[in-house]
Amino acid sequence: MSLSKNTIKLITSLRQKKYRQKHNLFVAEGVKVVNELLSSSLKIFKIYTTSIDVLQKSNNVELITEDELKKVSNLKAPNKVLGIFEIPSEKEIDTNNFIVALDEVNDPGNLGTIIRLCDWFGVKQLVCSKNTVDCYNPKVIQSTMGSLTRVNIVYTDLISFLGKNNLPTYTADMDGENVYSSKLPEKAVLVMGNEANGISEEVNNVVQQKLTIPRFGNIQQTESLNVATATAILLSEFKRGLK
Amino acid sequence: MSLSKNTIKLITSLRQKKYRQKHNLFVAEGVKVVNELLSSSLKIFKIYTTSIDVLQKSNNVELITEDELKKVSNLKAPNKVLGIFEIPSEKEIDTNNFIVALDEVNDPGNLGTIIRLCDWFGVKQLVCSKNTVDCYNPKVIQSTMGSLTRVNIVYTDLISFLGKNNLPTYTADMDGENVYSSKLPEKAVLVMGNEANGISEEVNNVVQQKLTIPRFGNIQQTESLNVATATAILLSEFKRGLK
Repeated sequence: MSLSKNTIKLITSLRQKKYRQKHNLFVAEGVKVVNELLSSSLKIFKIYTTSIDVLQKSNNVELITEDELKKVSNLKAPNKVLGIFEIPSEKEIDTNNFIVALDEVNDPGNLGTIIRLCDWFGVKQLVCSKNTVDCYNPKVIQSTMGSLTRVNIVYTDLISFLGKNNLPTYTADMDGENVYSSKLPEKAVLVMGNEANGISEEVNNVVQQKLTIPRFGNIQQTESLNVATATAILLSEFKRGLK
Repeated sequence: MSLSKNTIKLITSLRQKKYRQKHNLFVAEGVKVVNELLSSSLKIFKIYTTSIDVLQKSNNVELITEDELKKVSNLKAPNKVLGIFEIPSEKEIDTNNFIVALDEVNDPGNLGTIIRLCDWFGVKQLVCSKNTVDCYNPKVIQSTMGSLTRVNIVYTDLISFLGKNNLPTYTADMDGENVYSSKLPEKAVLVMGNEANGISEEVNNVVQQKLTIPRFGNIQQTESLNVATATAILLSEFKRGLK
């Protein structure tokens, strides 16, 4: 029996933000995701696995049984590995390149998808409002597929950040300029908002430019786009001229 | 007590495809989604609500308690209404317009997002391989936010469909033509594949054109894009010249 009660308690406690902050640790699961994190500069606290063979690195590894993994896993179908990593300290915001900023994005899947999109489109800086879902939330970690370590994510007061930075600021809006005919700069801050309410009024007041993804469906019936798909389309528009 | 044991059994059985097919019924939940479906041409089987006031139509409605709703709801946070609707009969495939085709998309959230994208971009026809997740799956219904009724969805043998239709066929591929510099036709079939494996070899053999969304991130590390975000970007590219 290699997993002590205290270890089990520690691992499951890390599903909650307050314990992740207390211990400065987070959990990642599955062969692919853990191996991606092992190949990054993240500090390993401990890796638990049912099979050493699936791992790219073998330091700090402890073999456990499938039953033990089930006990601590947050996945419906646990996948051989659970890794505990140290949360790295936040780096300064790089304001000299394209930035994606999020205003109260709540859904972990959406944040995970947006981190992957940043990675794909070479966006190295993601700025999140303090009430955006924590990027070390297990569901975010699982959906980023490892791209988390290649994007610098900073949680800060969004209004004050937007007030201080010198890049042009953009957001998505139903009544903005058609994004397909807009001349978009290479460096900018693209601010995306909450799933239900979009960006807050305060943020809206400081964002300079509103972009619209034209709707082709009939009349006004079509629901707005999901924040992750809207981010995909807008990032693609900002970047398409560069390739 | 208005919900009989048999009713509870019927409603919860509809989470499974075989019972949806047996009864030809599906479930939708929440004020917004149910009202969207009520305003469509779908036939109502029964609506259960904790508050008549939230509904746009009041035929076939039965008032239930919050506890009763909790018993039959598939949501973590039940939202006032659960509607049972008849599954409409499949219409013929409209091969005279832009078509999105899916090859074994498994994740209900991805299918829901893709249906919303079709609706947004005015794509009226979605063709799914028989092993694509059922569009009346409760998670699909919840994530389409009502756009389901504005897109004609047909499940069929994809190879045979692709062989018969006369539109040019496209898919996403790592080694295709840069989508940003491709001249794309107004009418086409865009085939998107499975989350883990992409399109099957058989489908790949009959698709004529491969499109690549260029990767801006460093080297080969970046994971591939999620199928829903890739669909968003490609649909945007097909349609952007038209607005």
